[in-house]
Amino acid sequence: MKKTTIVIVGLGLIGGSLAAALKKFGRKQFHVVGLTRSMTKVRQAKRKKWIDEGYTQPKPALRHADLVVLCGPLHLIAKTAKKIDAFIPQGCVVTDVGSVKGEICAAVKKAKLKKGLFVGAHPMAGSHLTGMAHGSADLYKGATVYITPTQNTKRLAVKKVKRLWQKVGAKIKIASPKEHDNQVAATSHLPHVIAFSLASLMPAQLMQVSGSGFRDMTRMAQSDPELWQYILRTNRSAVLKWIKTYERHFKQWHQLVTRSSSQSLVRALKKTRQKRVQL
Amino acid sequence: MKKTTIVIVGLGLIGGSLAAALKKFGRKQFHVVGLTRSMTKVRQAKRKKWIDEGYTQPKPALRHADLVVLCGPLHLIAKTAKKIDAFIPQGCVVTDVGSVKGEICAAVKKAKLKKGLFVGAHPMAGSHLTGMAHGSADLYKGATVYITPTQNTKRLAVKKVKRLWQKVGAKIKIASPKEHDNQVAATSHLPHVIAFSLASLMPAQLMQVSGSGFRDMTRMAQSDPELWQYILRTNRSAVLKWIKTYERHFKQWHQLVTRSSSQSLVRALKKTRQKRVQL
Repeated sequence: MKKTTIVIVGLGLIGGSLAAALKKFGRKQFHVVGLTRSMTKVRQAKRKKWIDEGYTQPKPALRHADLVVLCGPLHLIAKTAKKIDAFIPQGCVVTDVGSVKGEICAAVKKAKLKKGLFVGAHPMAGSHLTGMAHGSADLYKGATVYITPTQNTKRLAVKKVKRLWQKVGAKIKIASPKEHDNQVAATSHLPHVIAFSLASLMPAQLMQVSGSGFRDMTRMAQSDPELWQYILRTNRSAVLKWIKTYERHFKQWHQLVTRSSSQSLVRALKKTRQKRVQL
Repeated sequence: MKKTTIVIVGLGLIGGSLAAALKKFGRKQFHVVGLTRSMTKVRQAKRKKWIDEGYTQPKPALRHADLVVLCGPLHLIAKTAKKIDAFIPQGCVVTDVGSVKGEICAAVKKAKLKKGLFVGAHPMAGSHLTGMAHGSADLYKGATVYITPTQNTKRLAVKKVKRLWQKVGAKIKIASPKEHDNQVAATSHLPHVIAFSLASLMPAQLMQVSGSGFRDMTRMAQSDPELWQYILRTNRSAVLKWIKTYERHFKQWHQLVTRSSSQSLVRALKKTRQKRVQL
Protein backbone atom coordinates (compact mmCIF):
# COMPACT_ATOMS: atom_id res chain seq x y z
CA MET A 1 0.00 0.00 0.00
CA LYS A 2 1.26 3.44 -0.90
CA LYS A 3 2.05 5.58 2.14
CA THR A 4 0.12 8.78 2.77
CA THR A 5 2.40 11.80 2.43
CA ILE A 6 1.84 14.28 5.26
CA VAL A 7 3.50 17.66 4.94
CA ILE A 8 3.87 19.53 8.22
CA VAL A 9 4.39 23.25 7.73
CA GLY A 10 6.19 24.63 10.81
CA LEU A 11 8.18 22.39 13.14
CA GLY A 12 7.63 24.09 16.51
CA LEU A 13 6.10 22.43 19.56
CA ILE A 14 2.86 21.46 17.79
CA GLY A 15 4.24 20.58 14.35
CA GLY A 16 7.36 18.93 15.71
CA SER A 17 5.37 16.81 18.14
CA LEU A 18 2.96 15.78 15.38
CA ALA A 19 5.89 14.69 13.18
CA ALA A 20 7.42 12.76 16.07
CA ALA A 21 4.08 11.11 16.86
CA LEU A 22 3.46 10.10 13.24
CA LYS A 23 6.89 8.49 13.04
CA LYS A 24 6.29 6.73 16.35
CA PHE A 25 2.74 5.50 15.84
CA GLY A 26 2.25 5.51 12.06
CA ARG A 27 5.64 4.75 10.60
CA LYS A 28 4.31 2.19 8.11
CA GLN A 29 1.38 4.28 7.03
CA PHE A 30 2.75 7.81 6.72
CA HIS A 31 5.58 9.47 4.87
CA VAL A 32 6.37 12.60 6.88
CA VAL A 33 7.70 15.75 5.21
CA GLY A 34 8.69 18.89 7.10
CA LEU A 35 8.53 22.40 5.62
CA THR A 36 10.10 25.08 7.76
CA ARG A 37 12.00 28.35 7.41
CA SER A 38 15.44 27.28 8.54
CA MET A 39 17.76 24.53 7.38
CA THR A 40 18.88 24.18 11.03
CA LYS A 41 15.41 23.05 12.01
CA VAL A 42 15.27 20.61 9.08
CA ARG A 43 18.55 19.09 10.22
CA GLN A 44 17.41 18.93 13.86
CA ALA A 45 14.16 17.20 12.90
CA LYS A 46 16.04 14.73 10.70
CA ARG A 47 18.52 13.96 13.46
CA LYS A 48 15.63 13.21 15.81
CA LYS A 49 14.14 11.01 13.05
CA TRP A 50 10.92 13.00 13.23
CA ILE A 51 10.71 13.54 9.44
CA ASP A 52 11.54 11.49 6.37
CA GLU A 53 12.28 14.57 4.27
CA GLY A 54 12.67 18.24 5.09
CA TYR A 55 12.67 21.44 3.04
CA THR A 56 12.75 25.19 3.36
CA GLN A 57 11.09 25.68 -0.06
CA PRO A 58 7.42 24.92 -0.73
CA LYS A 59 7.80 23.41 -4.20
CA PRO A 60 9.81 20.27 -3.43
CA ALA A 61 8.09 19.84 -0.07
CA LEU A 62 4.52 19.91 -1.36
CA ARG A 63 4.59 18.18 -4.76
CA HIS A 64 3.45 14.76 -3.48
CA ALA A 65 1.36 15.95 -0.54
CA ASP A 66 -1.80 14.03 0.34
CA LEU A 67 -2.41 16.08 3.48
CA VAL A 68 -0.88 19.36 4.61
CA VAL A 69 -0.98 20.40 8.27
CA LEU A 70 -0.40 24.12 8.85
CA CYS A 71 1.36 24.52 12.20
CA GLY A 72 2.70 28.06 11.81
CA PRO A 73 1.59 31.23 13.60
CA LEU A 74 -2.18 31.64 14.05
CA HIS A 75 -2.45 34.98 12.28
CA LEU A 76 -0.72 33.62 9.15
CA ILE A 77 -2.78 30.46 8.64
CA ALA A 78 -5.10 31.75 5.89
CA LYS A 79 -2.20 33.44 4.13
CA THR A 80 -0.09 30.28 4.26
CA ALA A 81 -3.01 28.18 3.03
CA LYS A 82 -3.30 30.44 0.00
CA LYS A 83 0.44 30.35 -0.57
CA ILE A 84 0.84 26.57 -0.47
CA ASP A 85 -2.25 26.11 -2.67
CA ALA A 86 -0.08 26.89 -5.67
CA PHE A 87 2.23 23.95 -4.99
CA ILE A 88 -0.02 21.09 -3.86
CA PRO A 89 -1.63 18.43 -6.05
CA GLN A 90 -5.32 18.86 -6.94
CA GLY A 91 -7.59 17.63 -4.13
CA CYS A 92 -4.90 17.62 -1.45
CA VAL A 93 -6.42 18.01 2.02
CA VAL A 94 -5.26 21.04 4.00
CA THR A 95 -5.80 21.48 7.73
CA ASP A 96 -4.44 23.62 10.57
CA VAL A 97 -3.96 23.58 14.35
CA GLY A 98 -5.10 27.10 15.28
CA SER A 99 -6.79 27.82 18.63
CA VAL A 100 -9.52 29.96 17.06
CA LYS A 101 -11.63 28.53 14.26
CA GLY A 102 -14.39 30.94 13.23
CA GLU A 103 -12.09 33.66 11.99
CA ILE A 104 -9.57 31.26 10.42
CA CYS A 105 -12.12 29.12 8.57
CA ALA A 106 -13.80 32.28 7.25
CA ALA A 107 -10.46 33.70 6.13
CA VAL A 108 -9.48 30.47 4.36
CA LYS A 109 -12.86 30.37 2.65
CA LYS A 110 -12.32 33.93 1.51
CA ALA A 111 -8.86 33.00 0.19
CA LYS A 112 -10.60 30.62 -2.27
CA LEU A 113 -8.13 27.75 -2.52
CA LYS A 114 -7.98 26.34 -6.05
CA LYS A 115 -6.59 22.90 -5.29
CA GLY A 116 -6.68 22.34 -1.53
CA LEU A 117 -9.66 20.92 0.38
CA PHE A 118 -9.58 22.70 3.71
CA VAL A 119 -10.94 21.67 7.07
CA GLY A 120 -9.98 23.38 10.33
CA ALA A 121 -8.70 21.49 13.35
CA HIS A 122 -7.41 22.30 16.82
CA PRO A 123 -5.52 19.91 19.10
CA MET A 124 -6.11 20.84 22.76
CA ALA A 125 -2.51 20.17 23.69
CA GLY A 126 0.69 22.11 24.18
CA SER A 127 1.65 24.54 26.88
CA HIS A 128 3.29 27.90 27.42
CA LEU A 129 6.52 26.26 26.25
CA THR A 130 7.25 26.59 22.56
CA GLY A 131 9.70 25.26 20.02
CA MET A 132 10.79 21.88 18.71
CA ALA A 133 13.00 21.34 21.76
CA HIS A 134 9.88 20.82 23.92
CA GLY A 135 8.20 18.55 21.38
CA SER A 136 7.14 15.03 22.28
CA ALA A 137 5.66 12.10 20.36
CA ASP A 138 3.21 11.61 23.23
CA LEU A 139 1.85 15.17 23.32
CA TYR A 140 -1.46 14.18 21.73
CA LYS A 141 -2.14 10.99 23.67
CA GLY A 142 -5.58 11.34 25.20
CA ALA A 143 -5.87 14.98 24.12
CA THR A 144 -9.05 16.28 22.47
CA VAL A 145 -8.68 17.37 18.85
CA TYR A 146 -11.50 19.45 17.42
CA ILE A 147 -12.26 19.10 13.72
CA THR A 148 -14.50 21.92 12.51
CA PRO A 149 -16.19 21.30 9.16
CA THR A 150 -18.52 23.85 7.58
CA GLN A 151 -21.23 23.40 4.94
CA ASN A 152 -18.61 23.53 2.19
CA THR A 153 -16.22 20.99 3.70
CA LYS A 154 -15.66 17.77 1.78
CA ARG A 155 -16.29 14.60 3.77
CA LEU A 156 -13.00 13.18 2.53
CA ALA A 157 -11.13 16.02 4.22
CA VAL A 158 -12.77 15.34 7.60
CA LYS A 159 -12.11 11.62 7.24
CA LYS A 160 -8.41 12.05 6.46
CA VAL A 161 -7.80 14.59 9.24
CA LYS A 162 -9.68 12.43 11.70
CA ARG A 163 -7.57 9.39 10.83
CA LEU A 164 -4.38 11.42 11.25
CA TRP A 165 -5.18 12.60 14.77
CA GLN A 166 -6.61 9.29 15.89
CA LYS A 167 -3.35 7.66 14.86
CA VAL A 168 -1.40 9.80 17.34
CA GLY A 169 -3.74 8.97 20.22
CA ALA A 170 -6.17 11.90 20.21
CA LYS A 171 -9.90 11.86 20.92
CA ILE A 172 -11.83 13.51 18.07
CA LYS A 173 -14.54 16.09 18.60
CA ILE A 174 -16.47 17.30 15.55
CA ALA A 175 -17.97 20.77 15.99
CA SER A 176 -18.78 23.80 13.88
CA PRO A 177 -16.18 26.59 14.04
CA LYS A 178 -18.62 28.61 16.14
CA GLU A 179 -19.30 25.77 18.59
CA HIS A 180 -15.58 25.20 18.87
CA ASP A 181 -14.89 28.85 19.60
CA ASN A 182 -17.56 28.94 22.28
CA GLN A 183 -16.29 25.77 23.94
CA VAL A 184 -12.60 26.73 24.02
CA ALA A 185 -13.54 30.21 25.23
CA ALA A 186 -14.81 28.38 28.33
CA THR A 187 -12.20 25.66 28.75
CA SER A 188 -9.07 27.49 27.59
CA HIS A 189 -9.44 31.22 26.92
CA LEU A 190 -11.26 32.06 30.16
CA PRO A 191 -8.73 30.08 32.27
CA HIS A 192 -5.96 32.01 30.53
CA VAL A 193 -7.54 35.37 31.38
CA ILE A 194 -7.89 34.19 34.99
CA ALA A 195 -4.23 33.14 35.06
CA PHE A 196 -3.19 36.49 33.57
CA SER A 197 -5.16 38.44 36.14
CA LEU A 198 -4.03 36.35 39.12
CA ALA A 199 -0.36 36.52 38.12
CA SER A 200 -0.49 40.24 37.41
CA LEU A 201 -2.18 40.97 40.73
CA MET A 202 0.28 39.10 42.95
CA PRO A 203 3.04 41.19 44.56
CA ALA A 204 6.44 39.83 43.48
CA GLN A 205 7.61 39.09 47.04
CA LEU A 206 4.48 37.03 47.70
CA MET A 207 4.97 35.10 44.47
CA GLN A 208 8.31 33.94 45.86
CA VAL A 209 6.67 32.31 48.90
CA SER A 210 3.76 30.77 47.01
CA GLY A 211 3.13 27.04 46.87
CA SER A 212 2.54 24.64 44.00
CA GLY A 213 -1.15 25.60 43.76
CA PHE A 214 -0.41 29.17 42.77
CA ARG A 215 2.29 27.99 40.38
CA ASP A 216 -0.08 25.55 38.66
CA MET A 217 -2.76 28.20 38.39
CA THR A 218 -0.55 30.83 36.81
CA ARG A 219 1.66 28.68 34.57
CA MET A 220 -0.44 29.77 31.58
CA ALA A 221 0.38 33.41 32.31
CA GLN A 222 3.72 32.69 30.63
CA SER A 223 2.02 32.09 27.27
CA ASP A 224 3.12 34.02 24.20
CA PRO A 225 1.69 37.60 24.40
CA GLU A 226 1.36 38.14 20.64
CA LEU A 227 -0.48 34.84 20.18
CA TRP A 228 -2.80 35.52 23.08
CA GLN A 229 -3.76 39.04 22.11
CA TYR A 230 -4.66 37.53 18.73
CA ILE A 231 -6.70 34.71 20.27
CA LEU A 232 -8.54 37.01 22.68
CA ARG A 233 -9.30 39.53 19.96
CA THR A 234 -10.44 37.07 17.30
CA ASN A 235 -12.62 35.14 19.73
CA ARG A 236 -13.71 38.21 21.65
CA SER A 237 -17.47 37.76 21.77
CA ALA A 238 -17.34 34.18 23.06
CA VAL A 239 -14.57 35.05 25.54
CA LEU A 240 -16.55 38.04 26.85
CA LYS A 241 -19.63 35.88 27.29
CA TRP A 242 -17.70 33.43 29.48
CA ILE A 243 -15.89 36.24 31.32
CA LYS A 244 -19.28 37.61 32.34
CA THR A 245 -20.55 34.19 33.38
CA TYR A 246 -17.42 33.72 35.46
CA GLU A 247 -17.73 37.11 37.13
CA ARG A 248 -21.29 36.27 38.19
CA HIS A 249 -20.14 32.89 39.44
CA PHE A 250 -17.18 34.26 41.33
CA LYS A 251 -19.49 36.78 43.02
CA GLN A 252 -21.50 33.85 44.36
CA TRP A 253 -18.37 32.35 45.91
CA HIS A 254 -17.50 35.77 47.29
CA GLN A 255 -20.89 35.76 48.99
CA LEU A 256 -20.42 32.21 50.28
CA VAL A 257 -17.18 33.28 51.97
CA THR A 258 -18.79 36.45 53.32
CA ARG A 259 -21.78 34.74 54.87
CA SER A 260 -21.14 32.89 58.10
CA SER A 261 -22.94 29.66 57.18
CA SER A 262 -20.38 26.90 57.17
CA GLN A 263 -23.06 24.50 55.95
CA SER A 264 -23.73 26.25 52.64
CA LEU A 265 -19.99 26.61 52.10
CA VAL A 266 -19.36 22.91 52.73
CA ARG A 267 -22.24 22.01 50.44
CA ALA A 268 -20.81 24.10 47.60
CA LEU A 269 -17.30 22.74 48.19
CA LYS A 270 -18.52 19.15 48.21
CA LYS A 271 -20.48 19.60 45.00
CA THR A 272 -17.50 21.21 43.30
CA ARG A 273 -15.10 18.56 44.49
CA GLN A 274 -17.36 15.75 43.32
CA LYS A 275 -17.58 17.31 39.89
CA ARG A 276 -13.86 17.92 39.49
CA VAL A 277 -12.86 14.48 40.80
CA GLN A 278 -14.66 12.88 37.87
CA LEU A 279 -12.25 14.48 35.43
CA MET B 1 25.57 13.56 70.94
CA LYS B 2 22.10 12.68 72.13
CA LYS B 3 19.52 12.60 69.35
CA THR B 4 16.60 15.05 69.38
CA THR B 5 13.32 13.19 69.84
CA ILE B 6 10.65 14.46 67.46
CA VAL B 7 7.12 13.27 68.04
CA ILE B 8 4.86 13.62 65.01
CA VAL B 9 1.17 13.57 65.93
CA GLY B 10 -0.80 12.41 62.89
CA LEU B 11 0.80 10.46 60.05
CA GLY B 12 -1.16 11.69 57.03
CA LEU B 13 0.36 13.37 53.98
CA ILE B 14 2.01 16.16 55.96
CA GLY B 15 3.06 14.22 59.08
CA GLY B 16 4.04 11.11 57.14
CA SER B 17 6.16 13.11 54.71
CA LEU B 18 7.86 14.95 57.56
CA ALA B 19 8.71 11.64 59.24
CA ALA B 20 10.04 10.25 55.95
CA ALA B 21 12.09 13.40 55.35
CA LEU B 22 13.59 13.37 58.85
CA LYS B 23 14.65 9.76 58.43
CA LYS B 24 16.10 10.54 55.00
CA PHE B 25 17.93 13.79 55.75
CA GLY B 26 18.42 13.76 59.54
CA ARG B 27 18.82 10.11 60.49
CA LYS B 28 21.81 10.74 62.74
CA GLN B 29 20.33 13.75 64.44
CA PHE B 30 16.70 12.86 65.06
CA HIS B 31 14.82 10.08 66.77
CA VAL B 32 11.41 10.00 65.12
CA VAL B 33 8.31 8.91 67.03
CA GLY B 34 4.85 8.64 65.48
CA LEU B 35 1.62 9.09 67.42
CA THR B 36 -1.51 8.21 65.49
CA ARG B 37 -4.96 6.77 66.06
CA SER B 38 -4.58 3.41 64.41
CA MET B 39 -2.11 0.57 64.88
CA THR B 40 -2.37 -0.09 61.12
CA LYS B 41 -0.83 3.31 60.42
CA VAL B 42 1.91 2.70 62.98
CA ARG B 43 2.76 -0.59 61.27
CA GLN B 44 2.68 1.01 57.80
CA ALA B 45 4.99 3.83 58.90
CA LYS B 46 7.38 1.35 60.50
CA ARG B 47 7.42 -0.83 57.40
CA LYS B 48 8.34 2.22 55.32
CA LYS B 49 11.05 3.00 57.91
CA TRP B 50 9.59 6.47 58.39
CA ILE B 51 9.52 6.24 62.21
CA ASP B 52 11.75 4.72 64.87
CA GLU B 53 8.86 4.13 67.25
CA GLY B 54 5.10 4.37 66.89
CA TYR B 55 2.20 4.54 69.35
CA THR B 56 -1.53 5.03 69.54
CA GLN B 57 -1.37 6.25 73.16
CA PRO B 58 0.04 9.67 74.15
CA LYS B 59 1.86 8.63 77.32
CA PRO B 60 4.55 6.32 75.90
CA ALA B 61 4.84 8.40 72.73
CA LEU B 62 5.48 11.72 74.44
CA ARG B 63 7.54 10.96 77.52
CA HIS B 64 10.93 11.77 75.94
CA ALA B 65 9.75 14.38 73.44
CA ASP B 66 12.03 17.34 72.69
CA LEU B 67 9.77 18.64 69.95
CA VAL B 68 6.18 17.75 69.10
CA VAL B 69 4.74 18.49 65.64
CA LEU B 70 0.95 18.52 65.52
CA CYS B 71 -0.11 17.32 62.05
CA GLY B 72 -3.74 16.45 62.77
CA PRO B 73 -6.90 18.23 61.56
CA LEU B 74 -6.76 22.03 61.63
CA HIS B 75 -9.78 22.54 63.87
CA LEU B 76 -8.36 20.22 66.54
CA ILE B 77 -4.88 21.73 66.87
CA ALA B 78 -5.47 23.81 70.02
CA LYS B 79 -7.37 20.96 71.62
CA THR B 80 -4.62 18.47 70.83
CA ALA B 81 -1.96 20.87 72.10
CA LYS B 82 -3.78 21.05 75.43
CA LYS B 83 -4.21 17.29 75.53
CA ILE B 84 -0.59 16.39 74.87
CA ASP B 85 0.61 19.05 77.33
CA ALA B 86 -0.14 16.62 80.16
CA PHE B 87 2.29 14.04 78.81
CA ILE B 88 5.32 15.99 77.56
CA PRO B 89 8.45 16.91 79.56
CA GLN B 90 8.70 20.47 80.93
CA GLY B 91 9.95 22.91 78.25
CA CYS B 92 9.22 20.63 75.31
CA VAL B 93 8.66 22.65 72.11
CA VAL B 94 5.28 22.20 70.43
CA THR B 95 4.51 23.31 66.88
CA ASP B 96 1.88 22.67 64.22
CA VAL B 97 1.40 22.70 60.43
CA GLY B 98 -1.99 24.43 60.14
CA SER B 99 -2.82 26.65 57.14
CA VAL B 100 -4.30 29.42 59.29
CA LYS B 101 -2.26 30.90 62.10
CA GLY B 102 -4.08 33.82 63.78
CA GLU B 103 -6.96 31.74 65.11
CA ILE B 104 -4.80 28.74 66.01
CA CYS B 105 -2.10 30.69 67.84
CA ALA B 106 -4.77 32.59 69.77
CA ALA B 107 -6.56 29.35 70.67
CA VAL B 108 -3.34 27.71 71.85
CA LYS B 109 -2.51 30.77 73.93
CA LYS B 110 -5.97 30.58 75.46
CA ALA B 111 -5.45 26.89 76.22
CA LYS B 112 -2.56 27.92 78.56
CA LEU B 113 -0.10 25.07 78.11
CA LYS B 114 1.68 24.23 81.38
CA LYS B 115 4.74 22.51 80.00
CA GLY B 116 4.86 23.02 76.22
CA LEU B 117 6.50 25.99 74.52
CA PHE B 118 4.35 26.62 71.46
CA VAL B 119 5.20 28.28 68.17
CA GLY B 120 2.99 28.03 65.09
CA ALA B 121 4.30 26.92 61.69
CA HIS B 122 2.90 26.24 58.24
CA PRO B 123 4.69 24.37 55.46
CA MET B 124 3.44 25.57 52.05
CA ALA B 125 3.44 22.06 50.62
CA GLY B 126 1.00 19.27 50.05
CA SER B 127 -1.85 19.02 47.60
CA HIS B 128 -5.48 17.96 47.33
CA LEU B 129 -4.23 14.40 47.87
CA THR B 130 -4.25 13.23 51.47
CA GLY B 131 -3.02 10.29 53.50
CA MET B 132 0.26 8.57 54.19
CA ALA B 133 0.10 6.75 50.84
CA HIS B 134 0.84 10.03 49.02
CA GLY B 135 3.63 11.00 51.42
CA SER B 136 7.14 11.67 50.18
CA ALA B 137 10.46 12.46 51.85
CA ASP B 138 11.00 15.19 49.25
CA LEU B 139 7.72 17.03 49.80
CA TYR B 140 9.38 19.93 51.62
CA LYS B 141 12.39 20.40 49.37
CA GLY B 142 12.42 24.04 48.32
CA ALA B 143 9.00 24.70 49.90
CA THR B 144 8.41 27.76 52.06
CA VAL B 145 7.70 27.06 55.72
CA TYR B 146 6.27 29.92 57.75
CA ILE B 147 7.15 30.12 61.43
CA THR B 148 4.88 32.55 63.27
CA PRO B 149 6.15 33.67 66.69
CA THR B 150 4.19 36.07 68.84
CA GLN B 151 5.34 38.30 71.71
CA ASN B 152 5.14 35.38 74.12
CA THR B 153 7.07 32.90 72.01
CA LYS B 154 10.38 31.64 73.42
CA ARG B 155 13.37 32.07 71.09
CA LEU B 156 14.37 28.50 71.72
CA ALA B 157 11.09 27.30 70.22
CA VAL B 158 11.63 29.26 67.01
CA LYS B 159 15.22 28.04 66.78
CA LYS B 160 14.30 24.37 67.17
CA VAL B 161 11.41 24.49 64.71
CA LYS B 162 13.54 26.37 62.21
CA ARG B 163 16.28 23.77 62.42
CA LEU B 164 13.75 20.99 61.91
CA TRP B 165 12.31 22.39 58.70
CA GLN B 166 15.66 23.49 57.32
CA LYS B 167 16.87 19.94 57.73
CA VAL B 168 14.19 18.65 55.35
CA GLY B 169 15.02 21.22 52.68
CA ALA B 170 12.52 24.02 53.35
CA LYS B 171 13.06 27.78 53.10
CA ILE B 172 12.08 29.50 56.34
CA LYS B 173 9.90 32.60 56.49
CA ILE B 174 9.36 34.25 59.88
CA ALA B 175 6.15 36.27 60.10
CA SER B 176 3.54 37.20 62.67
CA PRO B 177 0.37 35.07 62.58
CA LYS B 178 -1.46 38.03 61.07
CA GLU B 179 1.14 38.64 58.36
CA HIS B 180 1.09 34.93 57.56
CA ASP B 181 -2.68 34.87 57.26
CA ASN B 182 -2.66 37.87 54.97
CA GLN B 183 0.06 36.41 52.74
CA VAL B 184 -1.46 32.95 52.36
CA ALA B 185 -4.88 34.52 51.75
CA ALA B 186 -3.25 35.92 48.59
CA THR B 187 -1.03 33.04 47.51
CA SER B 188 -3.18 30.07 48.52
CA HIS B 189 -6.70 30.86 49.73
CA LEU B 190 -7.62 33.20 46.87
CA PRO B 191 -6.31 30.73 44.24
CA HIS B 192 -8.43 28.04 45.87
CA VAL B 193 -11.58 30.18 45.69
CA ILE B 194 -10.79 30.84 42.02
CA ALA B 195 -10.33 27.13 41.39
CA PHE B 196 -13.61 26.36 43.17
CA SER B 197 -15.52 28.91 41.15
CA LEU B 198 -13.98 27.91 37.80
CA ALA B 199 -14.60 24.21 38.38
CA SER B 200 -18.15 24.75 39.59
CA LEU B 201 -19.00 26.97 36.62
CA MET B 202 -17.81 24.59 33.90
CA PRO B 203 -20.48 22.40 32.28
CA ALA B 204 -19.54 18.73 32.76
CA GLN B 205 -19.42 17.95 29.03
CA LEU B 206 -16.99 20.83 28.46
CA MET B 207 -14.80 19.63 31.31
CA GLN B 208 -14.34 16.41 29.40
CA VAL B 209 -12.85 18.20 26.39
CA SER B 210 -10.65 20.57 28.38
CA GLY B 211 -6.88 20.66 28.07
CA SER B 212 -4.10 20.51 30.64
CA GLY B 213 -4.42 24.23 31.44
CA PHE B 214 -7.94 23.86 32.82
CA ARG B 215 -6.91 20.73 34.70
CA ASP B 216 -3.95 22.48 36.33
CA MET B 217 -6.11 25.44 37.26
CA THR B 218 -8.85 23.42 38.90
CA ARG B 219 -6.82 20.66 40.57
CA MET B 220 -7.22 22.47 43.91
CA ALA B 221 -11.00 22.26 43.59
CA GLN B 222 -10.61 18.66 44.75
CA SER B 223 -9.38 19.79 48.17
CA ASP B 224 -11.08 18.57 51.32
CA PRO B 225 -14.39 20.48 51.78
CA GLU B 226 -14.42 20.39 55.60
CA LEU B 227 -10.85 21.65 55.81
CA TRP B 228 -11.51 24.43 53.33
CA GLN B 229 -14.69 25.72 54.86
CA TYR B 230 -12.68 25.94 58.09
CA ILE B 231 -9.77 27.76 56.44
CA LEU B 232 -12.03 30.20 54.60
CA ARG B 233 -14.06 30.94 57.70
CA THR B 234 -11.17 31.34 60.11
CA ASN B 235 -9.21 33.54 57.72
CA ARG B 236 -12.28 35.30 56.36
CA SER B 237 -11.26 38.94 56.64
CA ALA B 238 -7.92 38.49 54.87
CA VAL B 239 -9.50 36.24 52.22
CA LEU B 240 -12.28 38.76 51.57
CA LYS B 241 -9.73 41.55 51.21
CA TRP B 242 -7.89 39.60 48.49
CA ILE B 243 -11.13 38.49 46.85
CA LYS B 244 -12.07 42.15 46.44
CA THR B 245 -8.63 43.05 45.09
CA TYR B 246 -8.91 40.19 42.62
CA GLU B 247 -12.39 41.20 41.47
CA ARG B 248 -11.14 44.72 40.73
CA HIS B 249 -8.15 43.29 38.91
CA PHE B 250 -10.16 40.83 36.89
CA LYS B 251 -12.47 43.68 35.85
CA GLN B 252 -9.45 45.43 34.35
CA TRP B 253 -8.65 42.36 32.26
CA HIS B 254 -12.30 42.17 31.27
CA GLN B 255 -11.96 45.73 29.99
CA LEU B 256 -8.71 44.96 28.18
CA VAL B 257 -10.45 42.15 26.29
CA THR B 258 -13.48 44.35 25.58
CA ARG B 259 -11.51 47.26 24.17
CA SER B 260 -10.18 46.84 20.67
CA SER B 261 -6.62 48.01 21.34
CA SER B 262 -4.30 45.12 20.66
CA GLN B 263 -1.39 47.25 21.86
CA SER B 264 -2.61 47.69 25.43
CA LEU B 265 -3.48 43.99 25.56
CA VAL B 266 -0.03 42.95 24.35
CA ARG B 267 1.58 45.33 26.82
CA ALA B 268 -0.36 43.84 29.74
CA LEU B 269 0.35 40.29 28.57
CA LYS B 270 4.07 40.97 28.21
CA LYS B 271 4.31 42.54 31.65
CA THR B 272 2.45 39.62 33.21
CA ARG B 273 4.55 37.05 31.38
CA GLN B 274 7.79 38.72 32.42
CA LYS B 275 6.70 38.70 36.04
CA ARG B 276 5.58 35.07 36.09
CA VAL B 277 8.63 33.80 34.21
CA GLN B 278 10.83 34.96 37.10
CA LEU B 279 9.15 32.48 39.43
